[in-house]
Amino acid sequence: MYENDVFIKNFHTITSIGYDKKVGVNRLALNKYDIEARTRLIKEFNSINANISYDDGGTIFGSLGGNKEESIFIGSHMDSVPNGGRFDGMYGVVSALNVLKKLKNNGQINKKISAVDFTNEEGARFQPSLLGSGLTTEVFTKEFVYSREDDQGISFKDAVSKSGFMGSEENRAKRVKPGKYLELHIEQGPVLEHEGYQIGIPIGIVTMVVDEYEFFGESNQAGPTPMEMRKDALVSASRFITEVRDTARKNGNGLVMTVGKIKNDPNAYNVIPGKVMLNLDIRSPDKDIAFEYSKRAYEIADKISKEEGTEVKHRNLWVTETTIFNEELKKTIEKICKSLDMKYKYIYSWPGHDAQYMNRITDTAMIMVPSHNGRSHTKEEFTSDQDLINGFNVLYKTVLNLM
Amino acid sequence: MYENDVFIKNFHTITSIGYDKKVGVNRLALNKYDIEARTRLIKEFNSINANISYDDGGTIFGSLGGNKEESIFIGSHMDSVPNGGRFDGMYGVVSALNVLKKLKNNGQINKKISAVDFTNEEGARFQPSLLGSGLTTEVFTKEFVYSREDDQGISFKDAVSKSGFMGSEENRAKRVKPGKYLELHIEQGPVLEHEGYQIGIPIGIVTMVVDEYEFFGESNQAGPTPMEMRKDALVSASRFITEVRDTARKNGNGLVMTVGKIKNDPNAYNVIPGKVMLNLDIRSPDKDIAFEYSKRAYEIADKISKEEGTEVKHRNLWVTETTIFNEELKKTIEKICKSLDMKYKYIYSWPGHDAQYMNRITDTAMIMVPSHNGRSHTKEEFTSDQDLINGFNVLYKTVLNLM
Repeated sequence: MYENDVFIKNFHTITSIGYDKKVGVNRLALNKYDIEARTRLIKEFNSINANISYDDGGTIFGSLGGNKEESIFIGSHMDSVPNGGRFDGMYGVVSALNVLKKLKNNGQINKKISAVDFTNEEGARFQPSLLGSGLTTEVFTKEFVYSREDDQGISFKDAVSKSGFMGSEENRAKRVKPGKYLELHIEQGPVLEHEGYQIGIPIGIVTMVVDEYEFFGESNQAGPTPMEMRKDALVSASRFITEVRDTARKNGNGLVMTVGKIKNDPNAYNVIPGKVMLNLDIRSPDKDIAFEYSKRAYEIADKISKEEGTEVKHRNLWVTETTIFNEELKKTIEKICKSLDMKYKYIYSWPGHDAQYMNRITDTAMIMVPSHNGRSHTKEEFTSDQDLINGFNVLYKTVLNLM
Repeated sequence: MYENDVFIKNFHTITSIGYDKKVGVNRLALNKYDIEARTRLIKEFNSINANISYDDGGTIFGSLGGNKEESIFIGSHMDSVPNGGRFDGMYGVVSALNVLKKLKNNGQINKKISAVDFTNEEGARFQPSLLGSGLTTEVFTKEFVYSREDDQGISFKDAVSKSGFMGSEENRAKRVKPGKYLELHIEQGPVLEHEGYQIGIPIGIVTMVVDEYEFFGESNQAGPTPMEMRKDALVSASRFITEVRDTARKNGNGLVMTVGKIKNDPNAYNVIPGKVMLNLDIRSPDKDIAFEYSKRAYEIADKISKEEGTEVKHRNLWVTETTIFNEELKKTIEKICKSLDMKYKYIYSWPGHDAQYMNRITDTAMIMVPSHNGRSHTKEEFTSDQDLINGFNVLYKTVLNLM
């Protein structure tokens, strides 16, 4: 079990970058911790004499077997959300690195193999998410990606340039033409642990619709306006949040609807709220259901606003339609799980992943491991060492099978 | 009508300090606009050779007739909430200044008369509100008041010192022992306009209970957590906001309950909210009703949290019990209204005012004028010139009656 121990030690070392026990991980894309993690990754690649390249979105590729014709890409991302966990994304990158190490050590490099760290997967610093994979697969244009700005007004282009990881267009995944892409990731949900599975094989990634709502009421001193004369934007928003949750619950078909972000104006204890902005995130494996419930939520907001005497504006911010991964690769992963005697389950991935854009340019699949209590994007995010090792071995064996 | 025009012109000139048509007034306590307004007030006091003094909370007194035994204080505040209106507070200060001017001009100074600008009435920069009147009446201790900090960590003491308006303890109202206090203010509610009255005579100020709630859920990635496994702090808070509003509406007895401030964590569109903090503001002329509904709201929060699997902590932030103003002064104001042929109504003041602390050290009353559509604490706050003039004349005649 020497190799598993080496992998786990390497994992815990690298994931400590930007981690604080009290607040979690704050390794936002291209911030000082992300740059520290990238610098460490480069050092690791150098230790196995990997060929290192960056594309023009700062996405990093470390490759072995560069003289071979066919190629396999494996990877994920190292950036985190604010106060995030140690496993999200980082697990896939460190596992990819260690697959390269193990293959090299065992003399098993029969195809070109690249470990990838995609820039700004989370969308926490630059919106939208998946900027690095979006550029490297040419789903997004360079103009669009470069013009994204963080809360401080720093553009994505400037952040990549300043980080020292600016590379060139010809290194983009789309130009290099990988033959396969595999991504190992934590589930970020409770299903595998809850149902007692060791490995999840994602059928694909669900449809995601993100809508924005603005409720307009009448801002007034809290004291003198009688209850029946009020137009309270926060009351309308609160009724909306409750009713949307109840509607999603009643559907019962795996649909989820979340209001995660809300901004209340003027947000003073003694002023009736005059304006509330919120985002509604809707996900379903079935595109038509996601779209239908987006429409239903519009109607709920309109109805409530009419009843409350407030006004509401709603608009779609973005949609990503259902991704279905490569059937042959999924069968290969299933075969490996069986050979390793792993309990596996076909599931949907509910969060987006870099794999969804890689799926547009090459045969792609993912491998997932349990998240304790389903917690993710929080410091409580946890996956046991044994589960990490299980996933790592399934990834390694799958790659070996493709070699 | 010459004097009325002078008053109105003076009012519009001084209230333009810190005002921007698009965003309203941002004359927060002791910020650059408040200091500009204070400097202007000093200039005005000097123009009538008033004796100027500051207490150790930066509250400003401009006095005429300093050799007289008995004294009358009149005033209000010049600070505003963020994006506030032009009339709140400033109306009382400019009117007091102009009463001094008019009395002096007419040779009517038979008692000591002081115009007052209380520091930090709003509580928008330093919490709680009424800091200046709280200190000058010695309701608050100096230690408490000085230790208050704004969002930038600047203490009240440092802000007063830096403003140049730091004075001494012996100038506090409590030490100077005023014989009467009168405050002219906009209603900040819709009742007077709605019912066709020109003047409101506040019976007193309602009881105000401000409670803080923290709802704790489980923060998770929005996608993978099924609806039935969620512990969403924002859903609990939303149900609470809605149910509290419905409960207050049903009471129908003039009780108001407002959630004006809410903070959602981590507040990202794709993360289930893990923690929500909010303030509940409860007001009623009847102290017992306010306390009873504070308790009912606690029970509502407990019930909802139990149903939602979240947790909730609630605590009282502060209480100000019902203030009843001096009966004799109210009768005098009523008499003046009749003599001026003003339509007046006895009402409660729903917002707090500096008068409530002055009421603890001397005979106190207030005079109110209509607020258009009841709007206040917003740039839409408006009172017509005629209503401003009506209130000014009632104040002047009342003071004259007391001379």
